[in-house]
Amino acid sequence: NTSFDPKKHPHRRYNPLLDEWLLVSPQRANRPWQGQREETAEENRPEYDPDCYLCSGNIRANGDRNPAYQGTYVFNNDFGALLNEEVEFSEEQSGFFTLLPERGINRVVCFSENHSLTLPEMSVEHIKNVVDVWQEQFNELAALDHINYIQIFENKGSIMGCSNPHPHGQIWAQSSVPAMVQKTQDQLKSYFEKNKKTLLEDYLEQEMAAGERIVTENEHFAALVPFWASWPYETMIISKQKRENIAEFSEEEKESFAAVLKDLTTIYDNLFETSFPYSAGIHQSPTDGKEHPEWHFHMHFYPPLLRSAEVKKFMVGYEMLAEAQRDITPEQSAAILRNLSTIHYKRK
Amino acid sequence: NTSFDPKKHPHRRYNPLLDEWLLVSPQRANRPWQGQREETAEENRPEYDPDCYLCSGNIRANGDRNPAYQGTYVFNNDFGALLNEEVEFSEEQSGFFTLLPERGINRVVCFSENHSLTLPEMSVEHIKNVVDVWQEQFNELAALDHINYIQIFENKGSIMGCSNPHPHGQIWAQSSVPAMVQKTQDQLKSYFEKNKKTLLEDYLEQEMAAGERIVTENEHFAALVPFWASWPYETMIISKQKRENIAEFSEEEKESFAAVLKDLTTIYDNLFETSFPYSAGIHQSPTDGKEHPEWHFHMHFYPPLLRSAEVKKFMVGYEMLAEAQRDITPEQSAAILRNLSTIHYKRK
Ligand SMILES: O=P(O)(O)O[C@H]1O[C@H](CO)[C@@H](O)[C@H](O)[C@H]1O
Ligand SMILES: O=P(O)(O)O[C@H]1O[C@H](CO)[C@@H](O)[C@H](O)[C@H]1O
Repeated sequence: NTSFDPKKHPHRRYNPLLDEWLLVSPQRANRPWQGQREETAEENRPEYDPDCYLCSGNIRANGDRNPAYQGTYVFNNDFGALLNEEVEFSEEQSGFFTLLPERGINRVVCFSENHSLTLPEMSVEHIKNVVDVWQEQFNELAALDHINYIQIFENKGSIMGCSNPHPHGQIWAQSSVPAMVQKTQDQLKSYFEKNKKTLLEDYLEQEMAAGERIVTENEHFAALVPFWASWPYETMIISKQKRENIAEFSEEEKESFAAVLKDLTTIYDNLFETSFPYSAGIHQSPTDGKEHPEWHFHMHFYPPLLRSAEVKKFMVGYEMLAEAQRDITPEQSAAILRNLSTIHYKRK
Repeated sequence: NTSFDPKKHPHRRYNPLLDEWLLVSPQRANRPWQGQREETAEENRPEYDPDCYLCSGNIRANGDRNPAYQGTYVFNNDFGALLNEEVEFSEEQSGFFTLLPERGINRVVCFSENHSLTLPEMSVEHIKNVVDVWQEQFNELAALDHINYIQIFENKGSIMGCSNPHPHGQIWAQSSVPAMVQKTQDQLKSYFEKNKKTLLEDYLEQEMAAGERIVTENEHFAALVPFWASWPYETMIISKQKRENIAEFSEEEKESFAAVLKDLTTIYDNLFETSFPYSAGIHQSPTDGKEHPEWHFHMHFYPPLLRSAEVKKFMVGYEMLAEAQRDITPEQSAAILRNLSTIHYKRK
């Protein structure tokens, strides 16, 4: 019998944040691809686009006009998935038809007035302004009684459902803790109760010792390809010291966070010399007024590309019905990312 | 205060098959869409394509030649995600780096020698041949000691990662029960232990009484939009009598299953008058040699399209990080689907 080699043989890995397994098929990385090719992002956008509803001073889809802002700008989403209105609910739950009203606030965060930029093309100083806004928004929304969780995220690239290339992210603040965050919290909590340390403190320690999945790091943060990553170039930024949420970040930590964001997104752009698409978002403690010693700030990056700027990984079929699946191993991905420059390819 | 109306107000619904919640935002269905548009499928394909590696008599990517088959044809995937080889595994599991080797078999099932067809364009008789093959394959693979679960599925359309339009599906048979199936099994099991009936027997009874989410039905099967559907036009086919798996289907039931498959996929094609993309797959009892009275045969359809043949729902950002989200309600989707003809638009 051959003996098992994780670089060659199919295997499953365990994800302790979601209590889920994932299938890894390293031998499949070389199959030919004749399927769909994605359009790549336009390389050169103007600094101001008169038709962009996020540009400074422009009119939005609902008729409101943006102020002539410089830097960041936050507004309530004109077509939000949540409504802040309180509704009366008396319906009896019956059998399998269980539903509950959900309240919340959806905001859009413009990262810059400059339409042509993306995070990796902004200076650390300007990214730090975005981090400041995330912290301010978190504090403001957390103070509202009916807001119990705040999801900060960015969809980058049209392949990720982003309908406007102007640099921006979103904040969805709501009355419930959403499914995946609740799952993560349950896992963090049972680990913390058993070990008196956060799961991510211990995990990061093991990753720093192993080294092979680390992509980049600075004084306060590490970016790595999780051992259980399901997207080909998935990464996670973890705070080196346990922080429950972004409200706890010092000025220095916010600057460090901006720096690791710049490095990681630059590495991503350099991978295929394209504006690298992803969905990224912060997981942090709920704002439900309870104690959350189990929480440990982290940010997930889920980028869809697999082989080139045009060929993505399809999470379909088996993956939708059975289990997440990847071809290239997390160790291979991390090695590729780690060897890329933190100087943006457009600047070379 | 306004009183709650599930047709107007954001709410969450509970999915008892996965023990998960989902966010429904009915008020958001009308937001403008300026984002990515998908390419639509080519409407007229030849019956035989000399460059297709699935056509009868052609040479595949790995150099093997397909026989001059008529009807269905099954072969081992040349670039499978699993390997059938047994490997020796002695590695110590340490800390967060938990992995286990996985064995299995990946097969491709051609539905017809006719390159131009898709399921809704095939006759019930020919679809029945596909169902026969699924049953045969299930029996053959279930008999293997190291195969404990068999995932039968189809990715249809290039938007669903399908790299070849020749009508075909896949079977992944493996040694573990994959994550989502295991979750479903846990849910079915605890329900069965408490109620002495399968979860889907009781659920289907409530759906038949409610009526509003039923799409189509025949003597042995019902197709409906689940109360907790997350994709805009997601459906599920459920056997009216409890069947643990496809091996238990009689000839008559297989014909009924073929008929409901034809009706549902025709309705789908008629929705946007396009060859409607989806990932679909059967969930049924594991083949692990244990008793599975809790299982109840069903088939999920996860179609990505939202507004037209070119505009899909993006499950990104919030959905990847927090919770599945939909705009149009399951009841609205079911009403739209139910009112469509079961005669294919190309035949009218
Ligand atoms: O096996 P195929 O058709 O080449 O590949 C397709 O289906 C597989 C199973 O759902 C996925 O893992 C792939 O990402 C997808 O492109
Ligand atoms: O809010 P947007 O940018 O219009 O929409 C995008 O992000 C949302 C949140 O991830 C998703 O629900 C939408 O499917 C996607 O198109």
